[in-house]
Amino acid sequence: MDRMDHKSRIKQIQQSLQRHRVDALLVTHMPNVRYLCGFTGSSGALAVSAHGSVLHTDGRYTLQAKQEVRASRVRTAKGTPAVAALASIGGRKITVGFEADHVTVAQRELLAKTAPKARLKGVSGLIERSRMIKQPEEVQQLKAAVMLASGLFEVLLHGIKPGLAESHVAAELEYVARRSGAQGMSFETIVASGARSAMPHGVASTHPIAPNGFVVLDYGVILAGYCSDMTRTVHVGSPGRKQKDLYQAVLEAQLAAIDAVGPGVQAGKVDQAARKVLRKAGFDSYFTHSTGHGVGLEIHEPPRLGKGQTELLQPGMVITIEPGAYVPGLGGVRIEDMVLVTETGCQVLTPTSKELMIL
Amino acid sequence: MDRMDHKSRIKQIQQSLQRHRVDALLVTHMPNVRYLCGFTGSSGALAVSAHGSVLHTDGRYTLQAKQEVRASRVRTAKGTPAVAALASIGGRKITVGFEADHVTVAQRELLAKTAPKARLKGVSGLIERSRMIKQPEEVQQLKAAVMLASGLFEVLLHGIKPGLAESHVAAELEYVARRSGAQGMSFETIVASGARSAMPHGVASTHPIAPNGFVVLDYGVILAGYCSDMTRTVHVGSPGRKQKDLYQAVLEAQLAAIDAVGPGVQAGKVDQAARKVLRKAGFDSYFTHSTGHGVGLEIHEPPRLGKGQTELLQPGMVITIEPGAYVPGLGGVRIEDMVLVTETGCQVLTPTSKELMIL
Repeated sequence: MDRMDHKSRIKQIQQSLQRHRVDALLVTHMPNVRYLCGFTGSSGALAVSAHGSVLHTDGRYTLQAKQEVRASRVRTAKGTPAVAALASIGGRKITVGFEADHVTVAQRELLAKTAPKARLKGVSGLIERSRMIKQPEEVQQLKAAVMLASGLFEVLLHGIKPGLAESHVAAELEYVARRSGAQGMSFETIVASGARSAMPHGVASTHPIAPNGFVVLDYGVILAGYCSDMTRTVHVGSPGRKQKDLYQAVLEAQLAAIDAVGPGVQAGKVDQAARKVLRKAGFDSYFTHSTGHGVGLEIHEPPRLGKGQTELLQPGMVITIEPGAYVPGLGGVRIEDMVLVTETGCQVLTPTSKELMIL
Repeated sequence: MDRMDHKSRIKQIQQSLQRHRVDALLVTHMPNVRYLCGFTGSSGALAVSAHGSVLHTDGRYTLQAKQEVRASRVRTAKGTPAVAALASIGGRKITVGFEADHVTVAQRELLAKTAPKARLKGVSGLIERSRMIKQPEEVQQLKAAVMLASGLFEVLLHGIKPGLAESHVAAELEYVARRSGAQGMSFETIVASGARSAMPHGVASTHPIAPNGFVVLDYGVILAGYCSDMTRTVHVGSPGRKQKDLYQAVLEAQLAAIDAVGPGVQAGKVDQAARKVLRKAGFDSYFTHSTGHGVGLEIHEPPRLGKGQTELLQPGMVITIEPGAYVPGLGGVRIEDMVLVTETGCQVLTPTSKELMIL
């Protein structure tokens, strides 16, 4: 993570403190902590004020924090890191911002007791807004994760045989992913075959691959902390007319959504573009989720590309485009790429073919 | 999950509503939702009142919820499930409990806007307290997970060769785990070799296994939703006198802690038993975490076995006992078993030998 420019990230947060009317910010959401200072451990809290940035972690991570942390000092907390971090800045009458989207009601109460002099103020999406626009080194890292995952698609296809458990297929994929350098999968691998393909979130089960029907394959890898996300749907055995029509409709919806992506475009318009194609084909009522989401250090990040979302797409955003249709009795299809918003439109990062593959 | 008695779990919650002075409970923490009604999806909220229990999920999970959910009705929410669940119960002037340990400050605000007539009241640990005492079918499931993981230890040992990347060793383990029926790992596998063994949470990195030194191996599998957790430390090459002493001290601390486990014992006393042995050996300042934690549907559950914890152990609790010492320059050792608290003492569930293995 040395390549990442943590110094400028911390500076950007320091400069935005006044705008959010806080004297300091208590960062407790670990992907945000990592983004700001490079720390990859599971326990820590970062206190950012005009005076500097300090990571508080616990004894398990002292050594690791010293090696990883950039642009911030490191202290080992005796108790809860967030409490220690607040105590270090909240001893005076100042306003301390906390992450309202991540701090629980119980944690907020604990913090309020800890630093009775400080005024706690919930702020939302402050760091997430920075993270939404990927820096060039982040785009590069995301591209590497996408390429690693796409390269594994062959392995995945090779493993799909009627009668084999879905989880067996997932196991082969995940093994090769790990061996190829992935730290892990971005989320629980989805291998949903036959009737299960009509479950949009059918994680690989012990069910065998059906002798005839769609198989939805949705997976991603984590590489240097950054997540990839892709879906392809293949057909085992000969697809019928209706199956072919369903696949074609989802593919056209996906291409229409990609066409709609560009700087200044409302996120909801991209969703609308996909939905319009599926409506014409009579499948819109089977498209039961949104068209996409941002991806980065987390698998689901802003923006959300759903109905009525007014967020404007901007160059540097990396998003998924993944319409689907799930028809009980017929099966389900989803096709998903990762896409970079550019100055002039967009760049599809996922290189894998989207033609219907028949196995 | 059909074997689980969801009906009695829901009933238990209904009976405890009055004690917590709420008319209904909004359950949004997914392991709690699963515990109460069997739903394994990633998005849903359960509304429990004297009138019954209703799971609200989103369109992606309608089919899956119908298959999985027990003792509750299922509704598909158009927007956020928690909002829909609250709207369904909070239209009148009633007090609705929410999970203060899991609901964020921002979510609470959203809920308050959604149901202005309802009085929202944060409750803590209501379902977690039920979950702390495992029912016989849960103990059986946890034992199955422990046995699967222990059976993989041979595979893990086989993979440890100087020069091989730690992540390579983890990949082999995770592959066989998946192939053996595990849904996934309970947490990111720790393989920390040589100097990295002194990092208590050194997740498998691309660093090669050192030619001489400790390797801390900490991993677990998920089976039917239940987590296992075990740690063994082996030594590559011949250990010196100091290494042997360190290992022996940690082993004795672990055995002393297990000896201390029994019904009615304060959790902090178990931690104290481990710490006392390490103090005598001069290693207590290197024991930088607590002695253990509960395990179940989540890898970390109450009770916590740390300094000063007054929670009393009870039959049916399943906990880890995992003292460690991490000495910069010398290396780190941790030894961890899963233990069931019984009517008369405890039963160690992890069958793997704890003798120092030299590879």
